[in-house]
Amino acid sequence: MTSRFRFLTRSILALFVLLAFVSRALAEDPLSSWNDGPTKQAIIDFVNTTTDKSSADYVAPEDRIVTFDNDGTLWVEHPMYTQLAFALERVKKLAPQHPEWKTKQPFKAVLEGDMKTVAASGEKGLLELVMASHAGMSTAEFESIVKDWFATARHPRFKRPYTELTYLPMVELLEYFRANGFKTYIVSGGGVEFMRPMTQAVYGIPPEQVIGSSIKTQYEMKDGKPVLMRLPEINFIDDKTGKPVGINMYIGKRPVASFGNSDGDRQMLEWAGAGDGARLMGIVYHDDDTREYAYGPAGGLPSSPFGTFSQSTMDEAKKNGWHVISMKNDWARVFAFDE
Amino acid sequence: MTSRFRFLTRSILALFVLLAFVSRALAEDPLSSWNDGPTKQAIIDFVNTTTDKSSADYVAPEDRIVTFDNDGTLWVEHPMYTQLAFALERVKKLAPQHPEWKTKQPFKAVLEGDMKTVAASGEKGLLELVMASHAGMSTAEFESIVKDWFATARHPRFKRPYTELTYLPMVELLEYFRANGFKTYIVSGGGVEFMRPMTQAVYGIPPEQVIGSSIKTQYEMKDGKPVLMRLPEINFIDDKTGKPVGINMYIGKRPVASFGNSDGDRQMLEWAGAGDGARLMGIVYHDDDTREYAYGPAGGLPSSPFGTFSQSTMDEAKKNGWHVISMKNDWARVFAFDE
Repeated sequence: MTSRFRFLTRSILALFVLLAFVSRALAEDPLSSWNDGPTKQAIIDFVNTTTDKSSADYVAPEDRIVTFDNDGTLWVEHPMYTQLAFALERVKKLAPQHPEWKTKQPFKAVLEGDMKTVAASGEKGLLELVMASHAGMSTAEFESIVKDWFATARHPRFKRPYTELTYLPMVELLEYFRANGFKTYIVSGGGVEFMRPMTQAVYGIPPEQVIGSSIKTQYEMKDGKPVLMRLPEINFIDDKTGKPVGINMYIGKRPVASFGNSDGDRQMLEWAGAGDGARLMGIVYHDDDTREYAYGPAGGLPSSPFGTFSQSTMDEAKKNGWHVISMKNDWARVFAFDE
Repeated sequence: MTSRFRFLTRSILALFVLLAFVSRALAEDPLSSWNDGPTKQAIIDFVNTTTDKSSADYVAPEDRIVTFDNDGTLWVEHPMYTQLAFALERVKKLAPQHPEWKTKQPFKAVLEGDMKTVAASGEKGLLELVMASHAGMSTAEFESIVKDWFATARHPRFKRPYTELTYLPMVELLEYFRANGFKTYIVSGGGVEFMRPMTQAVYGIPPEQVIGSSIKTQYEMKDGKPVLMRLPEINFIDDKTGKPVGINMYIGKRPVASFGNSDGDRQMLEWAGAGDGARLMGIVYHDDDTREYAYGPAGGLPSSPFGTFSQSTMDEAKKNGWHVISMKNDWARVFAFDE
């Protein structure tokens, strides 16, 4: 009986130790929202090999630079880019001060909610909307306008603040890289001063690691205090071939890893991939209209003007060994609020 | 006798302890090349108060941003800007491929060593020299051209590599800030890709913390590999009102401390000074032609086209409480090679 009791105690103890071990291992998976598979494994292998001093592919901490696109890579970009939703709402808000907009396109279409005409106004029309909504105030004023908007705006489908519509697996990936000594950057076609007010809180990325498109600013004295006024003039478009240009301009180093989701990210991934040593490139494929959206037209998915991922980009990804990240298959959870 | 011997031993021991303490204290002065005085004290007080959690002027680590001009603030800018010396040497080197330069100004003057005519060619002439010497190659090629030049070029007066002509007190200041959790940035009118190849080794400042003037670059495929080609077209001039613009564009945060030495740094110092809480602004005053150079025209010193420090900037410094750093009086040593 004593010996039986002792056996039982020991078994229970062993079970507890095992349970503790398993739960600790589970809790410690830094990529727990990723399904096991070749993509997750490639990420882990890349981080292990580049941080292992005995590896031929070891990367010194100062060269551990990773760049991420934002729209469609780190957070939702449908039914339209978040910044476009902001611009449209702001045009509506400013309309009383601009009676001429009632008859002037593309403003008229915005005020009437006629999105087809807005889209048909093309790049020129969208630029006019951006200038009307993003310029004419100081950088400090714009920052508070953006912060106020993020605090109140809700996504039309998910009915949540846009700052909650980040992809949990990608946020885990950012943290995993940083925990291994990598410096994480955003390199986005979006406006740099639209992103900076939220990137620290949402992604853990400080303003100085956000690269984006920008309009010109001008130094002026107002009531004896210096301000930077935002001018209705493009300074830099951080998209397509602009992404490697922006990376070189801001960082002056070539990323060892890079993640995007659309045709606009091709050159950034090519640029990262052209360096020596181990490289990791990934491209998020939106093939999950149950949990998020499905668009391409790569793989025969519906085409989209926001985050277009064409078949030729898919072909280049396959040719260059970029990891195509299937939202459907690679991600166990999409959003933090998913159960 | 025993007691006397014991007393002696104890005294000697005490003396050694005292000596060790004193030498350690001396060795530990992180600003040992600075003479004691109000400027050194202001620096120490600023760092102490902004890093003390119980202080009303405490600054969170992520907001500890300090910006430094380069030419004349961190290293020598006489008898001409280092980058101009580079441009002139490069024009001479490229001359055989450009027979037309023998008769075309300002190239003719450069080849004949006629610095008066070069200077008289003004901004337009200097721009032509920069474009001819800084554009037309890839960013990687330019980097190796710059590195090669730094390895061989010598300063005409000091007969040393330009990378040795950094001011020891300022290098100590950079290290002192970093040791206290500050992020140190260069914000210079000089070319960003001219500085980046040397800032890490010389100042401990990585490429991504160097802001400067730049020419446009273009993404191209060459032999199946992407390159960034340097175009003969200005992208950004990081001088005067351009400095706050550059700081906002690259960092997106306002510096809490800033150092310069010329009229070109006024707006940067104004911008840093206009923030809330404790601020520290310093302006290096070249009043020591024995150990370095003396130029102004502030304070009646000879005027200079390189690093002009006019009386109105001196007046603004006094009005705004910027610390005028006298090379003669505030610095015990100027260069690391000084004894």
